Amino acid sequence: MDIKQQIKLFIEARSIALVGATRRTGDGHNVVENLLNYGYTGKLYPVNPNADDIMGVKVYHSIGDLPEGIDLALISTPRSQAPQHARECVAKGIKALIIVAQGMADVGGEGISLQQELVKIAREGGARVLGPNTFGVANAFMHLNTAFVNFEIPENPIGTIAQTGMLFGGTARRRLMGKAIDIGNTCDIDFADALEYYVDDPQIKLIAMYMEDVKDGRKFMRAAKKVTRQKPIIVLKGGRTSVGANLTKSHTGSMAGRAEIYDAAFRQCGIIRASDFDEMDDLVMGFWYLPPPKGRRVALMTNTMGAGILATDACTNWGLELATFTGETKERISRVMPPWLPVINPVDIGPANFVVPDREKVIFECMESLLLDPGVDAILFILPAGFDKESAWGVEVPNVARKLAAKYPAKPIVGWVHSNDVGEKSAHAYMTDRNIVVCPTVDRAARVLSRLLNYARFREEIKAEE
Amino acid sequence: MDIKQQIKLFIEARSIALVGATRRTGDGHNVVENLLNYGYTGKLYPVNPNADDIMGVKVYHSIGDLPEGIDLALISTPRSQAPQHARECVAKGIKALIIVAQGMADVGGEGISLQQELVKIAREGGARVLGPNTFGVANAFMHLNTAFVNFEIPENPIGTIAQTGMLFGGTARRRLMGKAIDIGNTCDIDFADALEYYVDDPQIKLIAMYMEDVKDGRKFMRAAKKVTRQKPIIVLKGGRTSVGANLTKSHTGSMAGRAEIYDAAFRQCGIIRASDFDEMDDLVMGFWYLPPPKGRRVALMTNTMGAGILATDACTNWGLELATFTGETKERISRVMPPWLPVINPVDIGPANFVVPDREKVIFECMESLLLDPGVDAILFILPAGFDKESAWGVEVPNVARKLAAKYPAKPIVGWVHSNDVGEKSAHAYMTDRNIVVCPTVDRAARVLSRLLNYARFREEIKAEE
Repeated sequence: MDIKQQIKLFIEARSIALVGATRRTGDGHNVVENLLNYGYTGKLYPVNPNADDIMGVKVYHSIGDLPEGIDLALISTPRSQAPQHARECVAKGIKALIIVAQGMADVGGEGISLQQELVKIAREGGARVLGPNTFGVANAFMHLNTAFVNFEIPENPIGTIAQTGMLFGGTARRRLMGKAIDIGNTCDIDFADALEYYVDDPQIKLIAMYMEDVKDGRKFMRAAKKVTRQKPIIVLKGGRTSVGANLTKSHTGSMAGRAEIYDAAFRQCGIIRASDFDEMDDLVMGFWYLPPPKGRRVALMTNTMGAGILATDACTNWGLELATFTGETKERISRVMPPWLPVINPVDIGPANFVVPDREKVIFECMESLLLDPGVDAILFILPAGFDKESAWGVEVPNVARKLAAKYPAKPIVGWVHSNDVGEKSAHAYMTDRNIVVCPTVDRAARVLSRLLNYARFREEIKAEE
Repeated sequence: MDIKQQIKLFIEARSIALVGATRRTGDGHNVVENLLNYGYTGKLYPVNPNADDIMGVKVYHSIGDLPEGIDLALISTPRSQAPQHARECVAKGIKALIIVAQGMADVGGEGISLQQELVKIAREGGARVLGPNTFGVANAFMHLNTAFVNFEIPENPIGTIAQTGMLFGGTARRRLMGKAIDIGNTCDIDFADALEYYVDDPQIKLIAMYMEDVKDGRKFMRAAKKVTRQKPIIVLKGGRTSVGANLTKSHTGSMAGRAEIYDAAFRQCGIIRASDFDEMDDLVMGFWYLPPPKGRRVALMTNTMGAGILATDACTNWGLELATFTGETKERISRVMPPWLPVINPVDIGPANFVVPDREKVIFECMESLLLDPGVDAILFILPAGFDKESAWGVEVPNVARKLAAKYPAKPIVGWVHSNDVGEKSAHAYMTDRNIVVCPTVDRAARVLSRLLNYARFREEIKAEE
């Protein structure tokens, strides 16, 4: 079985044995209950010697009682029982095993030999192991999620690979699903294997990873290069400091290597490194929603020149340039500006709004001019959407921006909304839409453009080499 | 009149002439309406030749008709009329003038001479000018806010000084008021003057500034040093790049100097520089709510080791160290841990929660041990508060943390909540409380501790020098 077929047994499982399924429901930790709630349509085979029925699903008293032909076993028993249960599953012909238990290589000592035993059992039976110390897999498109905590699984085009449940469940600002593979202690299935699955998956547009260590660097880079020529890989790397690297031993049982080596490998493969979860959030939204800029010339549109100056600093720091506008652009924008205000970049629409009371018109005229200007590669706007949420700032302005973004899909639009939340929604969630990504700071908005441009350049270079 | 008395005429004005008061109400831009809504209890004297009454307040047809003894004039007329109105206000004995109009030194040309004329008029009449190109002042403790946009003015112990309306109105995440002074084009009243007012203001605990340029560096540093020996000053500096610095000319009519010079001056004065609005937010909360750490030894408590490793990286990067626990601490924590899990720093409470189902107890035992450990200077916790908002994570855990924070007020507690928002509130707003500040990333949480420590060291050095 090739690796793609092998991973499919996990993430596209049509039938799952749940070894160690709990009877206790209502606390969000019962996988049978969760899967039923998600609407998973595959078959479930809970195994529990002390139950006959969980939520109306028939329970098997032992693995031996299970029928043949099951795709996946989710083994959720304590660490000492895991090898025996793995052995019985393999004997039933199951080729995909998720081992949930912690306390294996992540704690050292006896845990290491338990983990080695698991791999041996699987290999001898022609099966593969995900974990141990894992949430397993999730596939929103099949309403499948083996994690023992219950959370939303939206059908986003994002493929996650993580060595921790933390990223599996999403980031601080957003749920990442789509699909997720938690490789945990990485005793068998690793980053490269998971990448092979995602490489030509039509449901997945970009890959988000949390990585501590890679054991086989060559294998990883081979797989990563295949992916990055088609879709972006964004990675958050833990254990970058020596103190942090030491700790990875007590997390996934392995030791993270030097940060510089990883950085060099990432660069060579065109992998985009996020410095923290904030940037992971921004980049996921950026690569998901935005077209790549054609160049580094940014037009700034702001309602306050203070923010325009911070945006200028940010663009400069991130290797972008301020665009020079054509005469036509200046002429059209000047028509909605007070006569004493010269049209420069940043375009300051603040004063305009005291001359032309129709804010919608001001934004439309300025933004469309910038989108049409051949000297502009991207737009960064700054607005106070939450200032008063019933007014144009909160309702009409986002509508204008959305309309224009849809009309001119070739240029990326990023924004910073420098007021509080809009009603109950955060401003970025409120305004982000096709071709518009709003970030919590202007620096982060500029960084997104910069990363998009770098990746676009990487893709061009790859193409040129062919 | 000394400078403190002078600034009081602005920010503690008991009577305000509103020159150019508009009759139009209901759009949040009528200052008379806004002041009445805020509950301002001083006297209002709107001036408008074409109105007799605005919202029940008597309107004067000319400045000449005004009574004597008014503290402050807010002149909101177009730039060309501003000098004449300033002249008339000065003739009425008004010693504090706010000039709202843009289009002065900020656009150059004729605007420069208009601004110079304003200063001359004020000086000759013994008055001072705030602006032009300004929102004016706000003082939540008097329900006073001269800005022509309507926003909340909470009674926070924060004194803002800004060269833009943007910071005046708050940051992306929070309103900063208490008090705010928008020095705008800074034709007369400058940062140093505003600092002199805040230095021993008992309502203000910390100062937040947005700065583009300082004209008189010595004067500024003298005033800043007086303040920082008592309360922190946090500054966001615009125009740090040469492209950005060039632009400050078209914002406040002045040219920002080189970033390194400012950085050196800030360091010498003990001013804390925020790199962006995100950090401004974090630092304002940190310096407002937290005691300074006594040293750099941090205890990490996490529900996921992946985040613990990121936290370790973050602490190391920000010059902090991982604390070594006493035997007593380890012993007490081990009682709520699975037997196979060694107690290290970070303390991983994730597995504990599968052994001891009472999460509240696990958090309490671990956190109190860390607070009591003499080798721990600060605590950084990582929790998934929003995971399921009805459960312990969302309700009991924050309560435990708050209770302990109140009981042990000598050690700062920072946190990262790595899930989505809790109900309608963002996780940081939800959990931040006396002695607890929750940040949107673990890196930012560590950074807050680092900045607190640096400022505490600065204060110690100052004291040692005395």
